[in-house]
Amino acid sequence: MPSVLNPPEPPDPVPEGFVGGPAFGAMPIDLDENRFVATMEEQAAIGSAGERALDRVALTEADREVRDWFVEQLEALDLSVRIDEMGNIFGRRAGTDPDAAPVLVGSHLDSQPNGGIYDGALGVVAALELLRTLEDTGVQTTHPIEIVNWTNEEGTRFQPAMLSSGVWAGVHDRDEIYDHTDSEGVRFEDALTGIGYKGDAPAEPAEPYEAYLELHVEQGPYLEANNVQVGVVTGIVGLSWGSVTFTGEADHAGPTPMSGRQDPMVAAADLVTAIRRTPGMLGERTVATSGSISAEPNSINIIPERVTVTWDTRDRDDSVIDEATEHIEREAAAAAEREGVGCEVERRMRSRPTAFAERCVEAVEAAAEDRDYDGMRLQSGAGHDAAHVAQVCDTGMVFAVSEGGKSHSPAEFTTWDDCYASANTLANAALRIAK
Amino acid sequence: MPSVLNPPEPPDPVPEGFVGGPAFGAMPIDLDENRFVATMEEQAAIGSAGERALDRVALTEADREVRDWFVEQLEALDLSVRIDEMGNIFGRRAGTDPDAAPVLVGSHLDSQPNGGIYDGALGVVAALELLRTLEDTGVQTTHPIEIVNWTNEEGTRFQPAMLSSGVWAGVHDRDEIYDHTDSEGVRFEDALTGIGYKGDAPAEPAEPYEAYLELHVEQGPYLEANNVQVGVVTGIVGLSWGSVTFTGEADHAGPTPMSGRQDPMVAAADLVTAIRRTPGMLGERTVATSGSISAEPNSINIIPERVTVTWDTRDRDDSVIDEATEHIEREAAAAAEREGVGCEVERRMRSRPTAFAERCVEAVEAAAEDRDYDGMRLQSGAGHDAAHVAQVCDTGMVFAVSEGGKSHSPAEFTTWDDCYASANTLANAALRIAK
Repeated sequence: MPSVLNPPEPPDPVPEGFVGGPAFGAMPIDLDENRFVATMEEQAAIGSAGERALDRVALTEADREVRDWFVEQLEALDLSVRIDEMGNIFGRRAGTDPDAAPVLVGSHLDSQPNGGIYDGALGVVAALELLRTLEDTGVQTTHPIEIVNWTNEEGTRFQPAMLSSGVWAGVHDRDEIYDHTDSEGVRFEDALTGIGYKGDAPAEPAEPYEAYLELHVEQGPYLEANNVQVGVVTGIVGLSWGSVTFTGEADHAGPTPMSGRQDPMVAAADLVTAIRRTPGMLGERTVATSGSISAEPNSINIIPERVTVTWDTRDRDDSVIDEATEHIEREAAAAAEREGVGCEVERRMRSRPTAFAERCVEAVEAAAEDRDYDGMRLQSGAGHDAAHVAQVCDTGMVFAVSEGGKSHSPAEFTTWDDCYASANTLANAALRIAK
Repeated sequence: MPSVLNPPEPPDPVPEGFVGGPAFGAMPIDLDENRFVATMEEQAAIGSAGERALDRVALTEADREVRDWFVEQLEALDLSVRIDEMGNIFGRRAGTDPDAAPVLVGSHLDSQPNGGIYDGALGVVAALELLRTLEDTGVQTTHPIEIVNWTNEEGTRFQPAMLSSGVWAGVHDRDEIYDHTDSEGVRFEDALTGIGYKGDAPAEPAEPYEAYLELHVEQGPYLEANNVQVGVVTGIVGLSWGSVTFTGEADHAGPTPMSGRQDPMVAAADLVTAIRRTPGMLGERTVATSGSISAEPNSINIIPERVTVTWDTRDRDDSVIDEATEHIEREAAAAAEREGVGCEVERRMRSRPTAFAERCVEAVEAAAEDRDYDGMRLQSGAGHDAAHVAQVCDTGMVFAVSEGGKSHSPAEFTTWDDCYASANTLANAALRIAK
């Protein structure tokens, strides 16, 4: 992915990585690698859109199929299955201590419309293999272990992303989310009912949870660039999303002299350039993106009347996100003044950085060391259900290598070795907490 | 229209204007101002979309209605009406010399979807009032005078603009244009047949034409800025249209470091800025515009994979258009290299500047002087049917003042006094040639 002109960002100056050493934990387990890979391939066949391509958007027929398959697997393990009002599916294996709080593990089975086969699914399959291995080996845990498939992590058809873990964690209101509609006006609740997965259980933690662990592909290049197998996620960056609409006067591109123009396209271009420059001014790991632009009337021979451009800026430091947002807004105002156009700023979303519980981070790190995997601590640049769940209980994440940093497309790729290493790490980290 | 930051371009350093003096032509006529205004209002009621707003896109029901009205007016004058295979409507009044070639006058009755009531219609109504006045006063001309309404000047529903005068003048191929489709896949020929205006006459000049004169609103600010009533058009600027598609790699806006990005949005922004700068480097009256932009997948949190931006650049000097085009293409390549993205240039259209016949320019100038109107010579910055017709016979144009330079919107405005002055100029210029 890195271009010749833009060499990859160097790893942290003080490396956060570590090298795997001899095992020190008690009673480690190893998942069955062949069955694990077979299960990954099984799920990838549901909603398949070609070689390593998945079209399994939330609340579609393909999502229903993969849910049916998932529930079958849980029932085959005699787990106690529970589906909540948001369609989140839980399966619990009892612990030996009736008073111990459950340890939750899982991720999401929905995909982008033209997504890869690892994003989300890897975390669910790893959790499933953990429970299968416990069953096979007869290992008992003190705490119950619960597997979860969160509804609609991707947010493709219904916005926002991660809405069901958000309702479960009390971040969103259930009834408000029920009324969200897709591009064809279908309500979330109706679509959920339509695939038969609006359950009866309240979408909330019915009791305290001991911890939540999630395995996910990194979707970034850091693990590969640092040549390690497993990512120990310390938290999730915060973000600010917004848009700027510049408004000028539509006019004929021929007879209108340059000097008489108020051209919102030129102001929007200025802002895109300013957004690209923003991270370099603020932080080593700050990112800022203009992903979307639209012009009206968008005709080759008409000076546009209105151009809207979006921003997405992220950092691990909340104050840097504030700075970046204010910087982008100042640049928007300056671009508008230079071109003599109007400028309206809309702040669309703001999430604070999430710091994971140190005991979960350490459990992941210890599990990787114990199983002899090279690993490193890093922040997640993408949002995950874990960000919501962290509002409710101690939370941690494991990252698997994303080759080329690619995701949300069939170019998404993780070797089976790397998938297995991260899954085995998740399993042993969960055991460390549940034991 | 001009902003405080961008004062209007000064008039030509050596003014091309003149001040109206005493009449010197023979037998001038004056159109009936009241009837002229009433006829303008009559046509504006057909396809009306509110106060001074018109929705009369070519080959729609509103276009059919205004054509029916137009043919009625021609028949009321006992003109010999002819409709050709492109739906161009002609009405001829005989001259006294059976061997004299006809003088053609007219413009177009179609409008933009949310256009003004003057663009095109003013030229057709002025030609109609000329023929009515000749009939009222019994004036005979040596040459026949023929009125024309060209089909689909605007090019809104079917591209390109001015396609029917283009076929008539031999610039476009009839059968190729017949197969052009609108955004819903309807063929031009079928839409033309659908409104009952595919005629039998061949879409070509059946005989030599003496001259073509067209009155149109300026659609630019020069007449108003120079405080004159009538524009004597010396020609039409040439233009170059094209698009540049930058292609990078779609990626997640969060975990992808800035240094690993190939972002086509940033390259497109660079190009928009370069296009804005181009005219200042090349010519006093050069214009360059980025009117249209589109990004894929155009999502707030995804680095785009592909961004396409268009250019439109115009000048009176053909070599400047070449220079501007090459400059824009060089800037596109440089922007692509800076960002490490691919770059594909598509040249979409190129038209050379049109110089009108000096005898037509002089006839218009003399007519304005004779009727005591202040006028000035100027180039048209917009394309007109006259550019095509100029391939076939001597051609000239009259411009009416466009207040604020506005067109293609209900903000388009010309006072009735200015409409009348330009119509009277057209009528007398045509008489000077037809006599």
